Amino acid sequence: MATIIDGKALAKKLNSQTSLRVKKLQDTNGITPGLVVIIVGTDPASERYVRNKHRTAKRLGIYSLVRQLPDTISQSELLKIVQEYNDNPKITGILVQDPLPKQINEKEITRAILPEKDVDGFHPINVGKLYLDDSTNYPVACTPKGVMTMFKEYNINLKGKNAVMIGRSAIVGKPMAALMLNAGASVSILHLLTKDITEYTKNADIIVSATGSLHTVTKDDVKPGAVVIDVGQNINEEGHLVGDTDYADLLDKVSYITPVPGGVGPMTIATLMQQTVDLAEWSLERGK
Amino acid sequence: MATIIDGKALAKKLNSQTSLRVKKLQDTNGITPGLVVIIVGTDPASERYVRNKHRTAKRLGIYSLVRQLPDTISQSELLKIVQEYNDNPKITGILVQDPLPKQINEKEITRAILPEKDVDGFHPINVGKLYLDDSTNYPVACTPKGVMTMFKEYNINLKGKNAVMIGRSAIVGKPMAALMLNAGASVSILHLLTKDITEYTKNADIIVSATGSLHTVTKDDVKPGAVVIDVGQNINEEGHLVGDTDYADLLDKVSYITPVPGGVGPMTIATLMQQTVDLAEWSLERGK
Repeated sequence: MATIIDGKALAKKLNSQTSLRVKKLQDTNGITPGLVVIIVGTDPASERYVRNKHRTAKRLGIYSLVRQLPDTISQSELLKIVQEYNDNPKITGILVQDPLPKQINEKEITRAILPEKDVDGFHPINVGKLYLDDSTNYPVACTPKGVMTMFKEYNINLKGKNAVMIGRSAIVGKPMAALMLNAGASVSILHLLTKDITEYTKNADIIVSATGSLHTVTKDDVKPGAVVIDVGQNINEEGHLVGDTDYADLLDKVSYITPVPGGVGPMTIATLMQQTVDLAEWSLERGK
Repeated sequence: MATIIDGKALAKKLNSQTSLRVKKLQDTNGITPGLVVIIVGTDPASERYVRNKHRTAKRLGIYSLVRQLPDTISQSELLKIVQEYNDNPKITGILVQDPLPKQINEKEITRAILPEKDVDGFHPINVGKLYLDDSTNYPVACTPKGVMTMFKEYNINLKGKNAVMIGRSAIVGKPMAALMLNAGASVSILHLLTKDITEYTKNADIIVSATGSLHTVTKDDVKPGAVVIDVGQNINEEGHLVGDTDYADLLDKVSYITPVPGGVGPMTIATLMQQTVDLAEWSLERGK
């Protein structure tokens, strides 16, 4: 029977560590980490995410701002607002919530954020450092970073393991693949054009799925004892939130598995909070 | 019988295209692409590489400088020299030849080169753009970029193919993996910690080896019709320059293969020249 990786409990643990680090930064250095989440327009899902981030940040003692902007905003106006937070010493992390309206060049916005305030880890210079396995401090996309925290917590060692990343998005697949490679795994990156995913998964020690498709990983696709990490969020035929993998079927074949909900999801926001404090600490170190 | 990918002939073809592009830039825009190769110390192999680069550049009409520096140079002196070429409008591409003496922090030197003059494609922001499959123009490491030119020349389509990259260096393995991924292949990145390379290669449509070890890819490791690209340069038992793969044995099993010498090697310098001109053209476009 598989060990179920409890993302909810781990997120809680991580959040209390983060909260202690915030307190220490305040007590020792008189510094409060500051996060601004910029949201453009009124997409209900985005508003819910942003509210959750804001609430968690405040609860952990982080100085948290939500900057709500009209969906008619121009590129230059949005760039100016990003610049404002780049220049604001109270803000150590800047996040621009997806999605953005059509008139906005998202790539340019991402690149306008100072790399040292890029709390999402999406700036190409931070992506480059990650892919190069740079030994200095830099932010990394929160979802894959959260998965690495799970591996660590459950003593899942990646060194020499065969890892398969299904999905090659900039937000999950690519940074996750880089992190696993840096941890010593052999990594296969699969995607929509891959002809036979099973050919890879059946030999894999670690499988991470981020496809947004039901039944991406079935019981027949995995070898006994594999570790399965499910980043997917899908609504199934019965209207329930489920992952990419056949969770119930996999339980008696794999060694570790993340549930959906309660697996990777809660770790993403907790990692965002952790990284907001990381950025504040790194900024302090640079200032020394 | 395999088609032998003739890197020497292709490099020659690429060089004549480059030479025409140089002429056109001069005639139409009054601009000459300029390359500086900075070499520290007197390593004979490095000196030979640098001489080859210099000679080829001059032959193609590129303004070529070699800056020879003593191996006692300090970090700050070398940084100052890089800055000098960053500021020099005649220089469109800057290359710092490996290896560097111990007192030099190579990473810092790489990052001091302006990303738009980074003719080697080693700056993390350029690596990040590559990994993100950015649609704008940016330089890419020359050896893997040269391999992509080979694929194109021989109509080897990577879309949906299973590709295996053996080696994860910053200079070859990682950028090569990213380029193949961007071209639509499923990509497995293997390295010294990989337990069973054959498990991957036996199902691979494309195999790129950059290990620097003899017999990395043998006849038993590949499936019939595979494409084998050999980036290795090794001296064998008889004192001859050979690649990582068992070239002679593979000839009647694979569909395409690169010889060593005469395969990937000549493409690296030709690609460096091509990219020097790319940088000059992109700089011109930005200035418009």
